[in-house]
Amino acid sequence: MKTLYFITGNKGKALEAKMKFSVLDIEIIQKDIGYPEIQADTLQEVARFGVDYLQKKVKYPFIIEDAGLFIDALDGFPGVYSAYVFYKIGCDGILKLLENVEHGKRKATFRSVYAYSEPGKKPLLFAGECKGTISKRVIGGHGFGYDPIFIPEYHAKTFAQMSTEEKNEFSHRGKSLEKLINYFKNI
Amino acid sequence: MKTLYFITGNKGKALEAKMKFSVLDIEIIQKDIGYPEIQADTLQEVARFGVDYLQKKVKYPFIIEDAGLFIDALDGFPGVYSAYVFYKIGCDGILKLLENVEHGKRKATFRSVYAYSEPGKKPLLFAGECKGTISKRVIGGHGFGYDPIFIPEYHAKTFAQMSTEEKNEFSHRGKSLEKLINYFKNI
Repeated sequence: MKTLYFITGNKGKALEAKMKFSVLDIEIIQKDIGYPEIQADTLQEVARFGVDYLQKKVKYPFIIEDAGLFIDALDGFPGVYSAYVFYKIGCDGILKLLENVEHGKRKATFRSVYAYSEPGKKPLLFAGECKGTISKRVIGGHGFGYDPIFIPEYHAKTFAQMSTEEKNEFSHRGKSLEKLINYFKNI
Repeated sequence: MKTLYFITGNKGKALEAKMKFSVLDIEIIQKDIGYPEIQADTLQEVARFGVDYLQKKVKYPFIIEDAGLFIDALDGFPGVYSAYVFYKIGCDGILKLLENVEHGKRKATFRSVYAYSEPGKKPLLFAGECKGTISKRVIGGHGFGYDPIFIPEYHAKTFAQMSTEEKNEFSHRGKSLEKLINYFKNI
């Protein structure tokens, strides 16, 4: 069995990847060693910078992942700062900012980027996204972060009203992880 | 005349420093070479990381500066992300988030940190802050950023209702710059 390190502080993410990779006979081991996330416009820039930094410290293959919610009416806010903004103003803050924005203009996209790094090589990036709408209020008790205010396209429920399995079938991170898995299937 | 590089994309900041340093016979030269700003809790962390990065590229003494508005009722938001948040949601977004927050609970602090770096040495940091209140609406036409919604302590006007000279006498950046100047006076 091969080993692949997942550098993240998020146990849920690590577990999700662990389950998906198990069918490929690859063991995911979580390493919570931390790395700087730069202030940038795209998740790709954040991931590339993170890999550059980590490659100087880590001499084995690893993956990292970053995600964000990009709201059209707020010019992409909170974007790459989603975690920080959530921690500070929460779903309620986002709903306040969108208070007078009508239903048709509440479009948003959840994005996720996985980066796979081998020592000395440029990272490979795998992006996934899920389009949707920001609800008018907080709904549902599953998931985390902005899940209770995000209704994915072609659905009538928020992410927080779905089980993890249901959500991962078409979520941003479900898709980026699938691309990553497919890459490993084909090498 | 000695030379000191100010690494910033902001001409206004560079000019302000240029004027203050001229009395010390030090010429400030603006260099807009860019450096990564990490996602962190304090301006000090952002400045230290920026210096570490720049010292690998730049072999002469330089200064950088970073500032932010920390709003008590929003748990310090927008903080080190002030520039990005301003660009995305502006003063109006901040006022919306504080809509139902009464006058006495609208406290905020503008903070500024200058870092002075000599090749191979740890940076010296000079911090300045200005306490105040977030106004109920946008007022005044001077300044930039959050100036039209920030009323400094012991004043009845926003920063945007003051001339640059008036504001700099007690502004966060006025204070950090003064500490930096004093350091140069004493070496």
